[in-house]
Amino acid sequence: MSIITLTTDFGLRDWFVGSMKGVILGINEHAALVDITHEIPAGDIRAGAFALGVSCRCFPRNTVHVAVIDPGVGSNRAAIVVKTADYYFVGPDNGVLSLALEKEKVLEIWRVENEAYFRRPVSNTFHGRDVFAPVAAHLTLRVLMDSLGRQLKDYVKLEWPKPQVAGGVLRGQILYIDHFGNAVSNIESPAKSVSKVRVPDKVQCDIKRFYQEVPGGQPLAITGSAGYLEIAVNGGNAAQTFGLKLGDAVEVA
Amino acid sequence: MSIITLTTDFGLRDWFVGSMKGVILGINEHAALVDITHEIPAGDIRAGAFALGVSCRCFPRNTVHVAVIDPGVGSNRAAIVVKTADYYFVGPDNGVLSLALEKEKVLEIWRVENEAYFRRPVSNTFHGRDVFAPVAAHLTLRVLMDSLGRQLKDYVKLEWPKPQVAGGVLRGQILYIDHFGNAVSNIESPAKSVSKVRVPDKVQCDIKRFYQEVPGGQPLAITGSAGYLEIAVNGGNAAQTFGLKLGDAVEVA
Amino acid sequence: MSIITLTTDFGLRDWFVGSMKGVILGINEHAALVDITHEIPAGDIRAGAFALGVSCRCFPRNTVHVAVIDPGVGSNRAAIVVKTADYYFVGPDNGVLSLALEKEKVLEIWRVENEAYFRRPVSNTFHGRDVFAPVAAHLTLRVLMDSLGRQLKDYVKLEWPKPQVAGGVLRGQILYIDHFGNAVSNIESPAKSVSKVRVPDKVQCDIKRFYQEVPGGQPLAITGSAGYLEIAVNGGNAAQTFGLKLGDAVEVA
Repeated sequence: MSIITLTTDFGLRDWFVGSMKGVILGINEHAALVDITHEIPAGDIRAGAFALGVSCRCFPRNTVHVAVIDPGVGSNRAAIVVKTADYYFVGPDNGVLSLALEKEKVLEIWRVENEAYFRRPVSNTFHGRDVFAPVAAHLTLRVLMDSLGRQLKDYVKLEWPKPQVAGGVLRGQILYIDHFGNAVSNIESPAKSVSKVRVPDKVQCDIKRFYQEVPGGQPLAITGSAGYLEIAVNGGNAAQTFGLKLGDAVEVA
Repeated sequence: MSIITLTTDFGLRDWFVGSMKGVILGINEHAALVDITHEIPAGDIRAGAFALGVSCRCFPRNTVHVAVIDPGVGSNRAAIVVKTADYYFVGPDNGVLSLALEKEKVLEIWRVENEAYFRRPVSNTFHGRDVFAPVAAHLTLRVLMDSLGRQLKDYVKLEWPKPQVAGGVLRGQILYIDHFGNAVSNIESPAKSVSKVRVPDKVQCDIKRFYQEVPGGQPLAITGSAGYLEIAVNGGNAAQTFGLKLGDAVEVA
Repeated sequence: MSIITLTTDFGLRDWFVGSMKGVILGINEHAALVDITHEIPAGDIRAGAFALGVSCRCFPRNTVHVAVIDPGVGSNRAAIVVKTADYYFVGPDNGVLSLALEKEKVLEIWRVENEAYFRRPVSNTFHGRDVFAPVAAHLTLRVLMDSLGRQLKDYVKLEWPKPQVAGGVLRGQILYIDHFGNAVSNIESPAKSVSKVRVPDKVQCDIKRFYQEVPGGQPLAITGSAGYLEIAVNGGNAAQTFGLKLGDAVEVA
């Protein structure tokens, strides 16, 4: 069995995701297809990179991870395949793979150019169906990497803001707001002795171990499932309650 | 082939459901994964119990049904596995499994405590990924129930309101409103001679056998696919049209 | 491996799609299930026909395509199976299959009447679960077509508006608006020399080959992945920006 994951901004209203899956199954009928999400906001490369980066390691070795947030589709941006010690990553070379790749041991990077692996004719608006899906399917059939195209030395990396320490305060920012309204920061596992978290002018709360350690409706900070400090409300929506937005400062002291 | 169903409030915007599936496939790559729904309102145990309860019997024997609506995640609420004559049920012991279990022959109830079946480290916010998904995957590999933890005598049951008869009127209430705006009551298969249904101050209509028995835009009552009496509008949205809400009285006379 | 695709207006909030999948897997546990979409607007047969019509050919031969947009469920509208040179199509005989079938070589049309292939008892509101799902599953097990019911000479066809030429202007209309706000017309592959596209009183733009040929936020026309001329905005939402609606005229000159 070969696993292919899909992360896109195609949404679920139209036929786009289904079309990708049809193309894949036409090449490898035994592929197991798993949606990470298709609800990345249109063209939001950072959100796509985040969703893939915090979930890809849940999958077994040799999984092929496909991410298509691709505002440059049809232009001359490269389509790439990156082989790491554990996985294959497939997508446009615009940074969408880069957060995931930060944590992997990268072995080879290839620019995909061999049209033998494409669905033809290749449209100029839907490389998810015509390029990335068939290339991913061929990878599960163990194509030789050097038949894909030409090797690259590097791939495009998004810059992710790093938390800074100044005056005894660790200062990061909100990187992602999830479906529950939890605001995920870029601060990883803060020191255990630390206990106060603040989003200036918006909310201040304690670090807790689980949601129900505070009364219903009250805020807390918690190390979330992605490994980052999150601001949450027990039984509520922190982003709505406190007006939290992407980029808001998060201070730990 | 082993089937695992998933019912959660995780939504489809983030990476939560994909992460659960990755964990499952890492344990049993042949598992067939079926989403019941991930759009249960956040923390709404009753809605999750309803969705699972009215769909679980569509699946073949030995299906593993996982339901994660889990506002108490990380606290000391139990994680349970319930083996019935036909299925396995996995979830937090907060009532989310209880409507489904009402209709099953319960054989064994186990509190899951053996960390050998967990993904480690276990987070305090995402037992869907770290506890329920891996336990479900191991169940498809036929783990011995008594290796899971310790046996319980009972599980938490939600109280569901029962219809009452008074003065010749059968009085129930609206339990669920679906995507089409159909308002599902707790009244099962009313007597066939009965013909008038009323939601006081909102709508009155006849019981019909199919939607198009009334003109477009007109209300009707019908025994829906879940086996309960529903208020619907032919070609329309009954809940919006008549302002129907959860808990509204439904009278049959 | 047998592939079954699903196109419905059931949405993802409730248990409807999961129930169909459970029924299918109970008949053929090896079926590979692919969602085209379940977000067709309630009862919108044309939108369902469009989604199926522009995606069905991405799938390998012998795929069973099921489409359930079925406002007449429970009435005496026929349930049909259409065998073409490459695929099977299953759905209500209300036109939802007809755009897909226009491009196929139709071999046989059967009205499904043999209750041995149904889930019993058959509800009057959910033939997706009780009729179409089990019939599709049986098709993957190679049931004889003539055991399904009785052969028909034709199926219901939706009328699709055709573009007209008058005074040197090719005039079509908007048939579908996708998740990105791209407005898909009924004009196929216009002559390459042609370059101006106009939606009267709303927007005028040039035909381009890819989105980034115009600056961010600017409109363009492009032959989209479905093979039709589309109005788009680079990095934006054309339908919202220009107030484009289904049925709006699209003129190419």
